[in-house]
Amino acid sequence: MHRSRIGVVLIDHPAAGYEASADFWAGASGSPREQDRPTAEHPYESLRDFPGGVQLALQRIGDGTAPRVHLDIETDDVEAEIARVLALGASMVDRREDYAILADPGGVPFCVVPVQTGAAFDEHATSWP
Amino acid sequence: MHRSRIGVVLIDHPAAGYEASADFWAGASGSPREQDRPTAEHPYESLRDFPGGVQLALQRIGDGTAPRVHLDIETDDVEAEIARVLALGASMVDRREDYAILADPGGVPFCVVPVQTGAAFDEHATSWP
Repeated sequence: MHRSRIGVVLIDHPAAGYEASADFWAGASGSPREQDRPTAEHPYESLRDFPGGVQLALQRIGDGTAPRVHLDIETDDVEAEIARVLALGASMVDRREDYAILADPGGVPFCVVPVQTGAAFDEHATSWP
Repeated sequence: MHRSRIGVVLIDHPAAGYEASADFWAGASGSPREQDRPTAEHPYESLRDFPGGVQLALQRIGDGTAPRVHLDIETDDVEAEIARVLALGASMVDRREDYAILADPGGVPFCVVPVQTGAAFDEHATSWP
């Protein structure tokens, strides 16, 4: 048995639009930006969490990718969750070392990632038999 | 003074990919689909809410629009909230009768809509002076 939930909502922008968009969403959501800005190794920046610890985050993506919003499914068993969503009709886009980029049947990308939200995950995740 | 918050996360698909993607996200999130399927007049379908009443929803969009995820900012004063996000750097895409489609500085679309989540809005929205 393993658990998962949609745990992160990410707003992705290439470098050209990143700073202005990050400032915008910080203002729109009423969240201060982090002092540490995204780097190549850690291209993420957190904004205010949603209720229940679901994270709102910004990602600085590569210049070849269009700006977008995407969802992360967090799980305590990445392999089992990938198998579950593939069986539901997802397709694999890119299997990384500790997570995976997939797409829903209509082509919307999402990720399956290890647990990101700690106690909030334990409180709100769904168990799959 | 008015209030707002990010209140809805929508997964948008044109008709061709809609049904398979809706089935996928229902299974992925563990939510039964609604009996009433989206229509031209009401192209939305709700899935399980996130904690705090933030809604996860599906939208059947026109064939000319690419599949995507987008965020709705819900507010008790649509005019005031539009003015606030425009001042933060958003641009107007399409002003509809009771809501608006805008884009962040990097071009990610989002909407400003009337309150969708009732008591959860009252509990979690931010007040803007």
